[in-house]
Amino acid sequence: MTTAKWIWRLALSILLVMGFVAAEKPKGYHREICQYRKGKHIQPMSAYHTRLMEMRKQMMIRATLEGPEIDGYILPSTDEHLNQEVAPRDRRLKYLSGFTGVRAFAAVTSEGAAIWLEQRYAQQADGELECDWEIYLTSGNVSLADWLSSYVQYDKRVGADPHLVPHSLWIQWERELDYKLIKLVKINNNLVDHIWGTERPETPKNQVIQVHSKFFAGEIWQDKVKELRRRLAHLGCDAMVITSLTEIAYLLNIRGTDIPYTPVVKSYAIVSQDDVFFYVEHTKISLGIDLHLRTDCFNENCVKIKEYNQIWSDIRTYAQIWKRVLVSAPCVQDLGASEAIYSSMPAKIVVFEISPIIFMRAQKNSDEQAGMRRAHIRDGAAICEAMSNMATRFHTEQWTEEKINYEVELWRLSQKHSKGLSLRTVVAYGEHSALPYYISSNVTNIEVSDQSLLVIESGGQYLEGTTDVARTFIFGEPTHEMKKAYTNVLAGILHLTQLKFPADIMPSKVDALVRSMVWKDMTDFPQATGHGIGSFGSVEEPPISVAYGENSSFHFKPGYFFSSESGYYKGDDFGVRLKNVLEVVDTGFTHTTGAHFLAFQDVTMVPYEPKLIDSTLLSAAEKRLLNEYNAKIRNVVGEELKQLGNMRAFYWMMNQTRHIREYLPEDEYRSATGGGSGGHTSGPLIVLGLAIVLSAILSTRS
Amino acid sequence: MTTAKWIWRLALSILLVMGFVAAEKPKGYHREICQYRKGKHIQPMSAYHTRLMEMRKQMMIRATLEGPEIDGYILPSTDEHLNQEVAPRDRRLKYLSGFTGVRAFAAVTSEGAAIWLEQRYAQQADGELECDWEIYLTSGNVSLADWLSSYVQYDKRVGADPHLVPHSLWIQWERELDYKLIKLVKINNNLVDHIWGTERPETPKNQVIQVHSKFFAGEIWQDKVKELRRRLAHLGCDAMVITSLTEIAYLLNIRGTDIPYTPVVKSYAIVSQDDVFFYVEHTKISLGIDLHLRTDCFNENCVKIKEYNQIWSDIRTYAQIWKRVLVSAPCVQDLGASEAIYSSMPAKIVVFEISPIIFMRAQKNSDEQAGMRRAHIRDGAAICEAMSNMATRFHTEQWTEEKINYEVELWRLSQKHSKGLSLRTVVAYGEHSALPYYISSNVTNIEVSDQSLLVIESGGQYLEGTTDVARTFIFGEPTHEMKKAYTNVLAGILHLTQLKFPADIMPSKVDALVRSMVWKDMTDFPQATGHGIGSFGSVEEPPISVAYGENSSFHFKPGYFFSSESGYYKGDDFGVRLKNVLEVVDTGFTHTTGAHFLAFQDVTMVPYEPKLIDSTLLSAAEKRLLNEYNAKIRNVVGEELKQLGNMRAFYWMMNQTRHIREYLPEDEYRSATGGGSGGHTSGPLIVLGLAIVLSAILSTRS
Repeated sequence: MTTAKWIWRLALSILLVMGFVAAEKPKGYHREICQYRKGKHIQPMSAYHTRLMEMRKQMMIRATLEGPEIDGYILPSTDEHLNQEVAPRDRRLKYLSGFTGVRAFAAVTSEGAAIWLEQRYAQQADGELECDWEIYLTSGNVSLADWLSSYVQYDKRVGADPHLVPHSLWIQWERELDYKLIKLVKINNNLVDHIWGTERPETPKNQVIQVHSKFFAGEIWQDKVKELRRRLAHLGCDAMVITSLTEIAYLLNIRGTDIPYTPVVKSYAIVSQDDVFFYVEHTKISLGIDLHLRTDCFNENCVKIKEYNQIWSDIRTYAQIWKRVLVSAPCVQDLGASEAIYSSMPAKIVVFEISPIIFMRAQKNSDEQAGMRRAHIRDGAAICEAMSNMATRFHTEQWTEEKINYEVELWRLSQKHSKGLSLRTVVAYGEHSALPYYISSNVTNIEVSDQSLLVIESGGQYLEGTTDVARTFIFGEPTHEMKKAYTNVLAGILHLTQLKFPADIMPSKVDALVRSMVWKDMTDFPQATGHGIGSFGSVEEPPISVAYGENSSFHFKPGYFFSSESGYYKGDDFGVRLKNVLEVVDTGFTHTTGAHFLAFQDVTMVPYEPKLIDSTLLSAAEKRLLNEYNAKIRNVVGEELKQLGNMRAFYWMMNQTRHIREYLPEDEYRSATGGGSGGHTSGPLIVLGLAIVLSAILSTRS
Repeated sequence: MTTAKWIWRLALSILLVMGFVAAEKPKGYHREICQYRKGKHIQPMSAYHTRLMEMRKQMMIRATLEGPEIDGYILPSTDEHLNQEVAPRDRRLKYLSGFTGVRAFAAVTSEGAAIWLEQRYAQQADGELECDWEIYLTSGNVSLADWLSSYVQYDKRVGADPHLVPHSLWIQWERELDYKLIKLVKINNNLVDHIWGTERPETPKNQVIQVHSKFFAGEIWQDKVKELRRRLAHLGCDAMVITSLTEIAYLLNIRGTDIPYTPVVKSYAIVSQDDVFFYVEHTKISLGIDLHLRTDCFNENCVKIKEYNQIWSDIRTYAQIWKRVLVSAPCVQDLGASEAIYSSMPAKIVVFEISPIIFMRAQKNSDEQAGMRRAHIRDGAAICEAMSNMATRFHTEQWTEEKINYEVELWRLSQKHSKGLSLRTVVAYGEHSALPYYISSNVTNIEVSDQSLLVIESGGQYLEGTTDVARTFIFGEPTHEMKKAYTNVLAGILHLTQLKFPADIMPSKVDALVRSMVWKDMTDFPQATGHGIGSFGSVEEPPISVAYGENSSFHFKPGYFFSSESGYYKGDDFGVRLKNVLEVVDTGFTHTTGAHFLAFQDVTMVPYEPKLIDSTLLSAAEKRLLNEYNAKIRNVVGEELKQLGNMRAFYWMMNQTRHIREYLPEDEYRSATGGGSGGHTSGPLIVLGLAIVLSAILSTRS
C-alpha cells in the first residue's frame, strides 16, 4: 500500500469515526406496523426473531474458526449455482427472515438487520418480515456498503459465503466496502446452515435425472460437447468449469426437478478436450442416465460421473495441469460463476469470459424451433380453457387473484407434455395491475370483480419448449382510458412483430419501436421489452435483452426466441401488460448495401381482449396484422381445442379472435378524431333524397 | 523491444521480402480510360504529372533536412484545423492531383501514387485524375498500409505532415504501418508547399473578421469563456488549446469567410484560467474586432491577439507552466486535434478529452433557437422561389443538374441575411439520384427531364442560423414504385418528428423508427439518419448522430438541433432522399417512473412533393401529421413569400402543400389493399336504384 493510500485511510478513519458518532442511521421502506408497535413496545417472540439472535451468535463463534469474529454477515437469496428460484433446501434467506421473494439479499450486524429487494416485493416483504428487519430497495439510494458502514465500525470485518455470490458482485462489494474501510471476508461454512441443522430439508429422494430425448433436443449431447470443445480451443482454453444448471441441462440433454420453474439438475460439469466430468448426487443417477451419458467407456465422448462435492478437490487437482480455464463471466441476466469457483483456481489460468454455451443454446435447431411452436399452441389452448371456464363461472362465484392463479396453473399443468410452470404466475387485478412487478401472495390477495383490468402473466414448461405470455382482460365494460392504454400497448407489440431488419442491428436498438407507442402518452414501463427464452429451459435466457438502456453487442440470429412485452401503468388505478414470444427468422434476402434481412414471427398463440381494443386508434395496417394473428390462432389453437374436445374454450377463443373491421366507416372515423362536420357523410343521403323528390315529381307529372 | 518482438520482426521481414517479390500489387477502382491508354502507350504530359515528379524529387531532397530520405509520403485533403472543406491556399491535394472532392488522402511512392476517397467521389475522381493515380475507396478492403507495403520495402520510412493528420488517425496509421515494419515519420515542412512556391494562392486581403452580434448569438463571449473555464476547472485542466475553427467562432462570437461553407476564421485560441489568446493573421483584425474582443485591457476577460504562427512557440513556453492541458479528442464527426498539436506538449500534461465547447454549443440558447427557426422559414421561401421558377420554365428550356444547382444557389443567396451555402449542393437526377452520396460536377453533369426523380440536397448559412434540407421532386408523372418508395421514406421522417421520448434515450436508439419504414421493403440507406447542426456554424456539428451502428453515450437535450433523414436507392434507376432539421423541445412532463419526456419539432419548412405521396400507404394519423406540417408551411412560408412579393412561388407553395384527405373512401381503400369485392361500396347505389325503381312503380300506379 502506498503512502498516499495510508494518508487517505487515516483521514477517512477520522472522518468516519466522527461520522459514526454524528450520522443518522439510514432509513428504509416505511413499515407502518413496526411504527405502531414501536410506540407500544410490542415485540412478539417468533421463530424468526430467535433465528436472527442465533445468527448473531454464529457470527461470534463459527466465523472465528476461519479467523477473528465478524461484525456483519451478508446472505443472498441465491444458491451455489446462482439461481434466483432455489430448492427448499437452499432457501436460506427465507429460513432466516421469513421472506419468500427472490432477487434479494440480507445483511445482519450485532444491532441491525436489513434486506434489499426489488420494489415489486416491498409490500409482500412488509407483511412477511419481523420488525427486526429494515427493508431497502435494490434500486434505492442506500447501498449495502452505506448501511453496513452505519452499523459496523471502520477496519472491522464483514463476512459472506463466496459460494452464493457471483464473482463480479463480490468484486463490487469488496470495492464499495473497502472505500468505507470495511473488509469483506470469505466465510466458507454457511452460517445459516449451522443454525438450520437437522430442520433443513433433505434433498428429495425421488429426483432422478430425466433424459431429454433427441426427438425434442434435436441434437445428441456428444455433438454439443464437440462444438463446445471447438469453441474452447478457439478461445485457447483447455477446459471449462460449468456451474450454470441450465447450461449443463442443455449440454448433456438432461432435465430434472431440483429447482422450481426451471427443469434442471443440481450439478457441476467440467468439459476439457479429453474429459467430461459430471458432478451430481449419486442417488439421482438411474440406469437410463448411465446409458445416455455413456458412463461405461473411457474416451473423450464418455461422461465420468462424480459425487457433487468432489468438484472442489478436482478443480484444485486439475488447476495444476490446465493452462487456461474458462470461467463464466456475467451475460445480461446470467450472473456468471461464483466467487468460490473463481477463486478456487490461480488467477493467471482463469479466462473470465461469457460462456460459449450461451450462444450455442440461443440459436435453436429446427427440432427445437418446431417444438417451441407446438408448445406455444398447447399453451394457448390452456389459457383459452382457463379463461373460458372462468368467464362462465365469473358472476356466480367469488374470485380472488389467488383463485385465478390456481385455475390458470391447473389448466396449464393438465396439457399434454406439461412439465410444470416456467415462472411465478402473476395475477394482478385493479390497482395491483398498476404495479409493474406485482407478484400475488396470500398477504396481498384481493377480490377480483368486473370493474377493472386483470393482468395474467404466466408460462409453462413443456417437453417441447418453454412458454411465457402476458395478457390483460376485463370481465365488465372498460373505460375509454383503459381501451386507449390497451390499444397503444398492443400497437407497440404489433410494430415489433412485423419488423424486418438488417442482421447487424442490436436488440436494444429496436426497443423504441415498441415503447414509442406508450411514450405517445408520455408514459413508460420499467421492465425490459424483451429477453431470450429457453427450449424446455429457463424462461429468461441470455444473450438477448431488448432494452434501450442495454449496451450489449449481441445480435439477433435466425432461430433465436425472445419475448416482446409492453405495458402501461396508471398508479393506484389500473395497468396493462402484454407479452408475446417471437422467433427470429431469416428472410433470405440481402440488400445491395450488404444488409442481410431478418424478420420476426409470433410464436405465442393467445387471444387478445377484443373489448379493450379501440379500433379507431389502430391504422388499417395494424388491424390487418391483428386479424392475421387472430386467424392463425383460430386455425392452430382451434384445432388443438377441438382435439381436446373443449368446445366451451373453442367458442370462447373464436369470439375473442373475431375479425376486426380493418376499414373504418367515415362517420366512426370522424367521431373518433372529433374533427369535421357530419356534412361529409350525408352525400349519398342527399342524392337519395333528390332521387326520391325527382321521382315524385316525375310521378305526379305522368 | 522484447526478444519475442525481435523474432516476430525477423520472421515477418523474411516473409515480407518473399512476399514483396512474389505478391501482385493491389488493384484499385477500374479506370477504363487508363486501361485504354495503357494499350496505346499514351501518357499525355500535364501539369499534374510534372507535379507528381516534383513531389518524388522533394521526397528525396527536402525530407532529408529532417533525417534520411523518405520512400513514401501521405497527403490528406484536410488543413491544419482538420477541416474537410478548405481554403484555396490549403487545397494541397487538389494542387498535387487535380482531385476536387473532400474526405480523401493520397500516398505517393517513387513508383506509385494512390488516392483513397469515398464512393460518392469515385466517378468524379476518375475524370479528374491522371492515369498516374490509382483510386481506392476508404470503405474498401485495401488500406493505406496494405498499399504502401506493396510499394515500400520493410524498415523504410514513410512521411506525413503531422499538422494535417488527427492525432487518433496518426496513432492508427503508425500502428498499421508498424505491423508491416514501415516507419511513419513526421515531416514538419509540407512538401507540397515547396513545389507550390509562388503559385500558391495568398490569403485574400479583405477577409476581415466579422463580429457575430449578441442579437444573434444570444450570449456575450465573456460568459461563454467563463462557462468554459468552469468546465475546464471541473476537468482539472489549467488550459485548453482550441484548434477547431467552429469552436473558436462560437466561443468568441466571431465569424469569417476563410473556409467554404462554414463561416469561420482561420485561427487558434488558448483559454486558460487567466488568459485568452487568439492567434490570427493581423490583417484580419479591424477596430471593431479590437473593441469586441477587448484587446485594450489586461485582465482575464480581455483577449490578447497574437500572430497566427506564434501558437507553436507559445505552446512550448506555457507547457512548462501548465500542469494539465485539454487537447480535443475526436467526437462523432469532429476529428479532434492534430498530431502536431498533441505532440507539441509533453504527453504527461495532455488531457485528451472531448472539447467541452461541443456540449455548450450544441444546446442552443433561446435567441439561437428563434434564429434557427427564422432562418429555416427564409430558407423554405428560397426553395419555393427556386422550384416555382424552375417549374414555370421547365418545359421551355433545357435543364441539367448543374443548371438546377445554379438556380437553387442563386435563390438561396438572394435571401435576407444570407451568408452563403452550408454544404456542396447535391442535385441528382435519375440514376444519379440512386447514388446515396452523389455530388454533381461538370464531369458527371447530365440532362434533367421529367421522367425520373430529382433529389436536391442543400443548405444555407444565415446570420440567424444554418439550414440543411433534402427534397425529392418529379416534373412528370411518377410510377407506382416511385410513389411507394417516396411515401415510405416520408413515413419514417414523420414517425421521428412526432416522437415523444424519455430524456435518457441515446440518439442511436431512435434510428429504427425512421429506418423500419424502408426496412419494410428490405432496403436500407447507408448514411446516418441524423447529425447535429450549428447556428450560423457547421452543418455537421457533434455530438448528435442518429445511426443504429453508433454507440456514443450522448443524449438529446432541449435546444439541440439535428437532421432527420431517410432515403431509398434503387441502383441504376432512381433514388429518394428527404431531410428535415428537427429541434429538441422539453414537454415539461415527468412520468412517475422518473422519465422526463422530450419531444421533437420540425424546423425545416419546405414542401414535400404531393405527386409522390401515395396516400393509401399512410395511416390517417400520418396524414394528419403531414397536413399539420403543410398548414404550418402555408402559414409561415406563405407570410414570407408574400412579404417578398413572389406570388408565383406563393401559389406553387400553396399547391404543393394542399390538404391531403386524411380519411380514405372505402372504394379507394379496397382497391389499394387489393382485397374484398366492390360489393361493399355499392350499398348507397343499391338503395338509390331501389328508390328509383320504387318511385317508378309508384308513378306507374298513380
